[in-house]
Amino acid sequence: MAATFFLNGEFLPEEQAKLNITDLGLLRAYGIFDFFRCIDGKPIFQEDHLDRFNRSAELMGLNIPASREQLREIIAELIRLNPHALLGLKLVLTGGYSPDGFAPAEQSNFFVIAKPFEFKDPEKGLHFMSVEHQRQLAEVKSLDYLLPIYLLRKQREMGADDVLYYENGLITESSRSNVFVVKGDTLITPAEGMLRGITRKHILNFAQRELKVEEREVTLEETLQADELFTTGSTKRIVPVTKIDNRPIGSGQPGPITRQLYERFLTYEKETN
Amino acid sequence: MAATFFLNGEFLPEEQAKLNITDLGLLRAYGIFDFFRCIDGKPIFQEDHLDRFNRSAELMGLNIPASREQLREIIAELIRLNPHALLGLKLVLTGGYSPDGFAPAEQSNFFVIAKPFEFKDPEKGLHFMSVEHQRQLAEVKSLDYLLPIYLLRKQREMGADDVLYYENGLITESSRSNVFVVKGDTLITPAEGMLRGITRKHILNFAQRELKVEEREVTLEETLQADELFTTGSTKRIVPVTKIDNRPIGSGQPGPITRQLYERFLTYEKETN
Repeated sequence: MAATFFLNGEFLPEEQAKLNITDLGLLRAYGIFDFFRCIDGKPIFQEDHLDRFNRSAELMGLNIPASREQLREIIAELIRLNPHALLGLKLVLTGGYSPDGFAPAEQSNFFVIAKPFEFKDPEKGLHFMSVEHQRQLAEVKSLDYLLPIYLLRKQREMGADDVLYYENGLITESSRSNVFVVKGDTLITPAEGMLRGITRKHILNFAQRELKVEEREVTLEETLQADELFTTGSTKRIVPVTKIDNRPIGSGQPGPITRQLYERFLTYEKETN
Repeated sequence: MAATFFLNGEFLPEEQAKLNITDLGLLRAYGIFDFFRCIDGKPIFQEDHLDRFNRSAELMGLNIPASREQLREIIAELIRLNPHALLGLKLVLTGGYSPDGFAPAEQSNFFVIAKPFEFKDPEKGLHFMSVEHQRQLAEVKSLDYLLPIYLLRKQREMGADDVLYYENGLITESSRSNVFVVKGDTLITPAEGMLRGITRKHILNFAQRELKVEEREVTLEETLQADELFTTGSTKRIVPVTKIDNRPIGSGQPGPITRQLYERFLTYEKETN
C-alpha cells in the first residue's frame, strides 16, 4: 500500500510529496525533526515528542505552521491513512524557501513522513565504534547526520553497528540514540552534550525505583569498563551494546539488568500511553 | 524571466524542479555542492570547481551521474537558458532516496541551480564575529550550514556580517569563504581545517610575485593584530574585513595591499578564463 504523507497543509501520496530544490533544509541543512512510533494506531509518548519538536524549532528560530491541536489532528489522520501495526512518524520543519539562500524564510516548510518500521532486536548485542566528535547544537534534533553517514563505510569495515561519540574523554551519545552504563547497582548516563531522548527520560523516571541513577559526566574509560551498556531510542526502546571497537563490554553478552529494564519498559510504555 | 534549473537529467523551470521529501540531502544533510560564477556567459574557473565537486563526491562516497564532458554541456546549456551578465551556478549532489533513510542510495540526486547574483562591494569592509567551531569534514563542500545560520541572530545583534571560525586559538575560515592576513609584506592564510577555496588557490598562485606567502597555522591573536585582513570566495573575489568582534583590524579601513590584490585578481581572472 502506498504511504500517505503530510506536506504544507495537504495529505499526499508519497510520490507526490515534493519540495522545490531551493528549500533551505536541502540546500543548507537548516531544519529540525522529531520521530516517534505508533503501535496499533496509538502514538507513543506523543506529547513528549511534540514538546521537543517545539523546543528544537524555538532554538532554531523556526515557526511551526500549526498549533499543537492541529499537529495532533494531522498525526491522527496520518495514522488513519497509514494503517500499520508499527508506524513511524517523522515531523520535519525546514528554513523554507529562503530569499537569499541562507537566512531562513518567514515561512517554514513542514511535513510529516509516515512509514512502517521494525524494532531492533532487543537481544542482539550491538557493536559500537568510538568516534571523537561533538554534535553541533546537541540539544536540537537537527537534520545534520553528515558525519555518521560519512563514517558508515569505516563502521562497516569494522563490523560495527553504530558510532559512540566522545569528546575530551567523555561520551555523549550514539548517532541516533542515548547511551547508559550499568556498573554494579548503578545506572549512569551523560548529563550534557547529547540530545535529550524521550526514551532516556522515561528510563530515568522509572529506573530509580530499583537502581541508583546518576546523570553526570561519563568517561569513555568507565564505559569500556561497564558491567553492561545499552542504548535507547524511539526505534529501539532498549538495546544492549556488547562491544566497543571490537572489545567486549562486561561479559560480552546482553546483561540481566538491561534485560530487566527492557521488560519493565514494555510495561511502563503500555501503562503510560 | 523564470529561471531554468537542471534536475536528474532534465532542464526544468524553477517551480517544477522538485525532489521527493525523502531525499537524503534533505532528511539527513547528506550531500555536497559546488558554486561558481559565469560572467557574460563565461564560466569562471569552471574546471577547478568541477575538480573540487568531484573530490567532495569521492570523499563522501557519492557518484556524480554525469561525465565531466556531460557536466560541461549541462553548464553550457544552463548558461544559454539563463542569460544573465552575472550568473551563479550551484551543482548539488545528495545521497538520493535511501532505502533505509540513512545509508546513501545507489543513485544520487543531482541538480544544478542557476540564479543571477551580485558581487559583494569590494570597498565595504566586513565585520566578522569570531566563533569557536571546527567545521566537520572541512575538506568537503558539504550542505552543512547549520551553525552559521543558527548564529545569524547573534551575528545581527552584534552588527556583524559573517563568522570567523577558530579552534584551539587557530583560525580556519569564514562560513562561506577563506581568510587571509596581511602583516608587513607577508600574506598568511591557514593551511588546514578549512575548505580549499578556488579563489584562495589562485590568489596564492599570483600573490607570490609581489609578496611573501605563507600557508600555515594562523592564530586568532595574530589575526586581530593584522595590518589588513580579507576574505575570498566565488561570490566575493576579495573583500576586506575591517572589524572582528567590534575591534578594528589595522587602520579599521580597507587597506592598500587588499585593494591592490583585488585589482590584480580582476586582471588575472580575465587572463585565465
